[in-house]
Amino acid sequence: MKIYDIPGFPNPARIRIVLAEKGMDSQVEFVKVDLFAAEHKQPAFLARNPAGVVPVLELDDGTNIAECVAITEYLDNLDGNPVLTGKTPREKAIIHMMQKRADDQLIDAIGIYFHHATPGLGETLQAYKSPEWEHRKEWGERQLDKFKRGMTYFNEVLSKQAYIAGEQFSMADITAYCALLHAAFVGITVPKDLPALAAWQARLAERPSIRNRSGK
Amino acid sequence: MKIYDIPGFPNPARIRIVLAEKGMDSQVEFVKVDLFAAEHKQPAFLARNPAGVVPVLELDDGTNIAECVAITEYLDNLDGNPVLTGKTPREKAIIHMMQKRADDQLIDAIGIYFHHATPGLGETLQAYKSPEWEHRKEWGERQLDKFKRGMTYFNEVLSKQAYIAGEQFSMADITAYCALLHAAFVGITVPKDLPALAAWQARLAERPSIRNRSGK
Repeated sequence: MKIYDIPGFPNPARIRIVLAEKGMDSQVEFVKVDLFAAEHKQPAFLARNPAGVVPVLELDDGTNIAECVAITEYLDNLDGNPVLTGKTPREKAIIHMMQKRADDQLIDAIGIYFHHATPGLGETLQAYKSPEWEHRKEWGERQLDKFKRGMTYFNEVLSKQAYIAGEQFSMADITAYCALLHAAFVGITVPKDLPALAAWQARLAERPSIRNRSGK
Repeated sequence: MKIYDIPGFPNPARIRIVLAEKGMDSQVEFVKVDLFAAEHKQPAFLARNPAGVVPVLELDDGTNIAECVAITEYLDNLDGNPVLTGKTPREKAIIHMMQKRADDQLIDAIGIYFHHATPGLGETLQAYKSPEWEHRKEWGERQLDKFKRGMTYFNEVLSKQAYIAGEQFSMADITAYCALLHAAFVGITVPKDLPALAAWQARLAERPSIRNRSGK
């Protein structure tokens, strides 16, 4: 299998953590995509993933799997422990629900903020981020507000349970953690009045899959 | 089990079609949520789903499952045929990938357009749709452009295969079909130059789960 990504970025980190949790790192070859040069917006990459985002998992039969949830489902269903997408119908449902909330409220929100309300990855990529839209910055800033409300929501969740989707670590934790990584990169950290979120973040940082993360 | 929803609306229709496909209608009690009165934005409903959207599945143990993908995963993993979320790791991954694209490019896009660039469900609900943001209408219109580009993408997909995620009907088809239902409601139909999408839509309309859909 091949993963097309770039080390150190939030969505790529999600899959690198999944691979480390499952002990599958050695089964994957990483191919670097130059996001600064907008390589993921060019025809060669768009043929692989028309949505123009990383990471993409290429299977040995040539099939391209994009979208972190889809890639995680693939890897998680192959084999191994821990199971990150749930075992029972109820577990799977709760994990997918919380995963979607972590996408909408955290990782997508901070990503939109970064690419629209800040210089993002620089001029070349900005040309693909609605440069013609005069209200793009305001829209990005509204997403930062959403991200902050999201942190408050997840703090509440984590004041009642150990992990985002219950008492077990799951893909929803990975998504939320990587969103906070991205936020920290743009200078936004967990506020002091959200202690459950901060404690969870500190606990996750000690997991070997995160502490020893490749390409950190 | 109970489903909190409102008949005839796009996201509720997704789950009603899932239930009909799985032959599970009779196992569910439907509880109507008054979207026009913004019942889903009030504390009682928000306690059930903090995201404030329908449908929500309430399990017999009182657990609330929100988000259509999560509800579909639950129902699909319980039992029965057809399997809508895939059997093998590869199938599951491709279905989740295409499902995400149908969410982003079609059903979410047309929903944002409807609620921000048109009067939507009327004044009561509009109060919860960023009324303070002076560029909300423009944002909604940009989402309509996204929806139209999405139709073009899915037409291309369907010119090469029978269903959105391959040769089998799946939850990704249900999502895309319900997005087109919503679009038709606001007067946007599949353009004549997208024949594969139109043919797929006509074929799906004949499925018993859709033709005889409850609360249509």
